Amino acid sequence: MSDIANRLRTELGVDVVPLDVPERNHHDWSGLPPVSPLALVRACSTEQVAIALRLCHETETPVVPQGGLTGISGGAHPVAGAVVLSLERMNRVLAFDAQMATLTVEAGCVLQTAQEAAQDGGLMLAVDLGARGSCTIGGVIATNAGGNQVLRYGMAREHVLGLEVVLADGTVLNSMNNMIKNNAGLDLKQLFIGTEGLMGIITKAVMRLQPRPSHSATAFCGCTDTAAAVAFLKRARADLGPALISFEVMWPSFYDLMRAGINAKHPLSEPHGVYVVIEAGGFDDNLRGQFENCLGVALEEGALNDAVIAASVREERELWAVREAVAEYGHILGPLTAFDVGLPLESIAEAVSRLEAEIAERWPGARALSYGHMGDSNLHLVVNVPQAGTDQPASALKTLVYGIVRDLGGTISAEHGIGAVKRDYLGYSRTEAEIDTMRRLKFTLDPRGILNPGKGFAP
Amino acid sequence: MSDIANRLRTELGVDVVPLDVPERNHHDWSGLPPVSPLALVRACSTEQVAIALRLCHETETPVVPQGGLTGISGGAHPVAGAVVLSLERMNRVLAFDAQMATLTVEAGCVLQTAQEAAQDGGLMLAVDLGARGSCTIGGVIATNAGGNQVLRYGMAREHVLGLEVVLADGTVLNSMNNMIKNNAGLDLKQLFIGTEGLMGIITKAVMRLQPRPSHSATAFCGCTDTAAAVAFLKRARADLGPALISFEVMWPSFYDLMRAGINAKHPLSEPHGVYVVIEAGGFDDNLRGQFENCLGVALEEGALNDAVIAASVREERELWAVREAVAEYGHILGPLTAFDVGLPLESIAEAVSRLEAEIAERWPGARALSYGHMGDSNLHLVVNVPQAGTDQPASALKTLVYGIVRDLGGTISAEHGIGAVKRDYLGYSRTEAEIDTMRRLKFTLDPRGILNPGKGFAP
Repeated sequence: MSDIANRLRTELGVDVVPLDVPERNHHDWSGLPPVSPLALVRACSTEQVAIALRLCHETETPVVPQGGLTGISGGAHPVAGAVVLSLERMNRVLAFDAQMATLTVEAGCVLQTAQEAAQDGGLMLAVDLGARGSCTIGGVIATNAGGNQVLRYGMAREHVLGLEVVLADGTVLNSMNNMIKNNAGLDLKQLFIGTEGLMGIITKAVMRLQPRPSHSATAFCGCTDTAAAVAFLKRARADLGPALISFEVMWPSFYDLMRAGINAKHPLSEPHGVYVVIEAGGFDDNLRGQFENCLGVALEEGALNDAVIAASVREERELWAVREAVAEYGHILGPLTAFDVGLPLESIAEAVSRLEAEIAERWPGARALSYGHMGDSNLHLVVNVPQAGTDQPASALKTLVYGIVRDLGGTISAEHGIGAVKRDYLGYSRTEAEIDTMRRLKFTLDPRGILNPGKGFAP
Repeated sequence: MSDIANRLRTELGVDVVPLDVPERNHHDWSGLPPVSPLALVRACSTEQVAIALRLCHETETPVVPQGGLTGISGGAHPVAGAVVLSLERMNRVLAFDAQMATLTVEAGCVLQTAQEAAQDGGLMLAVDLGARGSCTIGGVIATNAGGNQVLRYGMAREHVLGLEVVLADGTVLNSMNNMIKNNAGLDLKQLFIGTEGLMGIITKAVMRLQPRPSHSATAFCGCTDTAAAVAFLKRARADLGPALISFEVMWPSFYDLMRAGINAKHPLSEPHGVYVVIEAGGFDDNLRGQFENCLGVALEEGALNDAVIAASVREERELWAVREAVAEYGHILGPLTAFDVGLPLESIAEAVSRLEAEIAERWPGARALSYGHMGDSNLHLVVNVPQAGTDQPASALKTLVYGIVRDLGGTISAEHGIGAVKRDYLGYSRTEAEIDTMRRLKFTLDPRGILNPGKGFAP
């Protein structure tokens, strides 16, 4: 038993610092090999987080923050010799304010719990991800998570009004603003959003809520090719404005395999070059008419070949089924390497064809599935090389994929962060001056480098 | 002639560093007494900005950045012994991208020029302020400016996708991202938005554009009191969703005096406790019906007493006339002290009545005019003490106003920044730990403290 574990246990008690670290805290969802941490702190309060960090700062002990452990970039994956600091017990909804349209929560609050609290109050927390039932608000903010509604509501960053953060040395930074406008100096919360715990540990947040749309409409569409899908997106933005909630694209590489894999019905009678799931939400009885008009114009313009509009909630779910089947990758594909990149729209067609072609050339028989949030210029790609078994060529794949992304002016991380998995490739998307500046700012807040070392932009 | 002026002139030429500093660069719009700077640099390129900063960094010469000089908090006001760095010549629109819906501009580009470039491309730059014809994008970003559409489109921060910035030592930081999603490490641009040049000098920006609403509706409304106006806001948010563009409130203290001052017609037949200008914008033919329904429900609920809906663009302008008459303060009020504070909605009624009552008690005969962007919980207050003439009791007024704002959990700056004018009051809205953290971060990027000393959170 390490000295730091004993000291933490003495200060915080055996309930907070258990004698054994459960296996579930040895890894996150990134697929990296499990690591047994020095100790686990299951903090119940900001004060306990501050005590733990102060002690780790004094002893220069690395700290890895953990929430719902659903991240796939390894941001919450333990590193050797580190204390793991779990926020899962700080899971309360603290306040709902209908007038200000805000929800105040502890960092370990599960996203779905927060969504439900907002809904109970007649409003909506418009951050939404597949992992909603287990990911925590702290993790959502620390990774600046995206999802299927970013086009309309923005990334997690745009939903955060205030934060409470504990800095590396245990200082509590209370910036629990609840106003849309607050220009009193540097907006410190921005430093902690999307930085994966490298700058401080988020303990509480004030989230901005939205009115709930009263009407919705969903369609599954077929387009000739990527260029047509981009033209359709442009049409939908112009005609639907903020009623455009989601614009999700699937290339046949993804759609055909996943549809067969989950045994879903094809909503259209013929195959197409690109499939789009488009969803609109609005506050007016005429939403569906507006939606149908928009699709009609896109058909006339040739941006669309065919479309089916859902007539019921059940049909809406059916139209989304293949796009939402990503949890089935394991069964359908086996071992895989997953990518989350951003690309300017004018390069997406080229990116998809180059990526799929170069992977097929290098690894004949490889399955490279392309899909993504085209409205946010966010492309997902998952690759399985059947002949490689459990020893997928992740490193060579990353070099190939991120190289193409770099050439096309994209980013190696659109919405999943950098973590441990992408850290060696940060220079593909950021300049030396940028990375140096990030590191100098981190050094200012965490001079001993205890927070999540080896992740993201940490040295 | 100072040594630094000569050195700058030798490096950059007399066209960039003129022999005399024009009077217009001796002050901004804050009303602070003019200060003659050591030298003026009228940079034409990022490279010239970098050269000037490198030299000032080497010689520890203070630098005050200037754009359109329209700020009222003194962020661009010269300080003694400083070089003034004007970005006004870097005024080009560099690129319009219809697919990505972005506009790339130099920092000195006038807001209206950028708005027009977006409009020419069929899109909209949705940052808008009264000073649009002279304020520059760099200043808009550096102050995280607000305006009348924040409720719908957010502060300047939410319109910025990428920045190019020159750091104090002349390092050029190129973060010209043009994607909605980019999670490759710390989002450095956030450090420069709203920090009034304290962290670096913005030289270029990628702005996010919006689709242009095809329909609009505007009404002028009367409510019994502030609580009723808050109830009306809640109704409008729920029923209009993102079609709610502006929700501007004027209390009689403002409305009656300003209406008489500009000799405008009262749109309603009787006086009311609070006046609201509400504007909606949408993408559907039915917008006006939706708007009328919303007002009808608010009338039934008692949130509204009376309302008139504009039937033409001319009538829209008339309904906005008094709210937009703020440039007439000088003629109508004479010398004044202006406030821009944020308050949680539940405290706005109390704030307005306490502020107006305490000012009247302390300065009998004083005119305290209340109005603001209620949808953003942003209250404006302008005060004129007639008997004080040109020697308005600004300091005593600030202590009184900011004291009440602090008591009610508000912020001393909603949208106008801190600058020189509010710097002594930053501690009213930020904790010691917050201000200390801001200063440490500034020290990291500007170790010699040359950027805008004495402003905002600078020591």
